[in-house]
Amino acid sequence: MLIQRLTIIGVGLIGGSLGLALKRKQVCGEIVGYGRSEANLKTALACNIIDHYTTDVAEAVHNADVVMVAVPLGMMAQVFKAIQPHLSDLTVITDGGSAKACVVADAKQYLGDKYPNFVAGHPIAGTEKSGASAAFAELYDHRRVILTPTSETNPQAHQLIKQMWQLAGANVVDMAIQNHDEVLAATSHVPHVLAYSLVDTLAAMNERVAIFENAAGGFRDFTRIASSNPQMWHDICLANRTAVLDVLAQFNQDLQKLTLAIEQQDSETIMQVFTRAKTERDQFCG
Amino acid sequence: MLIQRLTIIGVGLIGGSLGLALKRKQVCGEIVGYGRSEANLKTALACNIIDHYTTDVAEAVHNADVVMVAVPLGMMAQVFKAIQPHLSDLTVITDGGSAKACVVADAKQYLGDKYPNFVAGHPIAGTEKSGASAAFAELYDHRRVILTPTSETNPQAHQLIKQMWQLAGANVVDMAIQNHDEVLAATSHVPHVLAYSLVDTLAAMNERVAIFENAAGGFRDFTRIASSNPQMWHDICLANRTAVLDVLAQFNQDLQKLTLAIEQQDSETIMQVFTRAKTERDQFCG
Repeated sequence: MLIQRLTIIGVGLIGGSLGLALKRKQVCGEIVGYGRSEANLKTALACNIIDHYTTDVAEAVHNADVVMVAVPLGMMAQVFKAIQPHLSDLTVITDGGSAKACVVADAKQYLGDKYPNFVAGHPIAGTEKSGASAAFAELYDHRRVILTPTSETNPQAHQLIKQMWQLAGANVVDMAIQNHDEVLAATSHVPHVLAYSLVDTLAAMNERVAIFENAAGGFRDFTRIASSNPQMWHDICLANRTAVLDVLAQFNQDLQKLTLAIEQQDSETIMQVFTRAKTERDQFCG
Repeated sequence: MLIQRLTIIGVGLIGGSLGLALKRKQVCGEIVGYGRSEANLKTALACNIIDHYTTDVAEAVHNADVVMVAVPLGMMAQVFKAIQPHLSDLTVITDGGSAKACVVADAKQYLGDKYPNFVAGHPIAGTEKSGASAAFAELYDHRRVILTPTSETNPQAHQLIKQMWQLAGANVVDMAIQNHDEVLAATSHVPHVLAYSLVDTLAAMNERVAIFENAAGGFRDFTRIASSNPQMWHDICLANRTAVLDVLAQFNQDLQKLTLAIEQQDSETIMQVFTRAKTERDQFCG
């Protein structure tokens, strides 16, 4: 048994799917759920994601081998603060937040002497759904999980979290915190900002109804991420705003050039951008 | 038999799928293929999309009941010019172009006295693939086809093309030309511009390899349309540039506001945009 007692704080898509994935492999003795919404915890229990739940934070983390904090980024600090007095020296703490500099700063500030047992992590997986009812055991199969340990991280804690994610089906890689945040701004955070922004722009247009009635598969794919949880993505944009703003600035500059090329019917520039992009995407995602 | 002789000019994804869809229903006596690439025409023949092909334009349209022009927008004018002398008074001409004002203007200029038999059309369907080998019979099932007839369009020609698309599996609606072009700029052309532009921006970043290695499903969906044919989308951007530039201008203005909100950590504005967008998308695409 890799983990005798796993506590999941925030049993939503990310935390819940971890529970289901580990249950599938029977590598946890017991899984305890904790969260703000008792209704969601009841759903998690009914879906057999957790073995029991509590609304008492001390009870939740008592004797836990691993505490997985899978709450929105804006709530990380208060969760660390709440659990800190009840953590044993042996408890390993990890998270599933989409930005890492901010979470590591929160952990350092609020976990005190338990901070070396904190291993920051980010599973690169998800859907636009949220809550325990959206969780499924296969979410992490063959997906990447990025861990961002620092020189202060306890190597045994790092090893345990790595094994946990591997047993959940994921490929685990380590990355520097800043590198993670820049890469994720580019591949995930900025695309979400653009998708939300475009749908909002179209919703304000006169042809609003005709626009959405005539939207084809390409539009549905392009805007799927605009159906994601607004609070979660608000938190991510603010938590990782330096990297998000950097990528947005670069994107804006390039989009201005492309817009000008369309205005001036500059076929060469348009073809260059489109061809480079197609080549790049086909190579990496093809 | 609705159509004794159907000529498809440009037997790619759009033209080829129409051929396969109509063959499925056995409503064409004979399907003739014509195009620039003999290799592609041979593929179309091997895939049983067409019954035979020719590289002679006069032979291609001779005695055709319907001529479907499914070539890139930038080639419409020259195709109309080439076929015009060989069209009978009874031949109905239609197209599958993604912008309609430009095609109707080309048709008016180059089809001469045959212009009333031209019915401009746009099937709202496609994939990022192209060529005859990408065609499939189900492409138009339950998808929308927009026709943009004008006061000069022969009502019988309009009726025939409407029936043709219905037999191909599509839901057919009529729309004013300008309305079509604005709606399509919003739902299709601008999303393609943004996807191409973003992928090109990321491809130029230092973390290029890490970026694409760590891209998850959301990014793949968001950028799928950046794998589309560059020449085709170049043509669309130029052919529909007025509407495309209008939507891009509005999008840019809104994106600047959202960027400023992230910079200033203005949670209220961020949450408003994200929540409106999610509500809108869930309502229409949910």
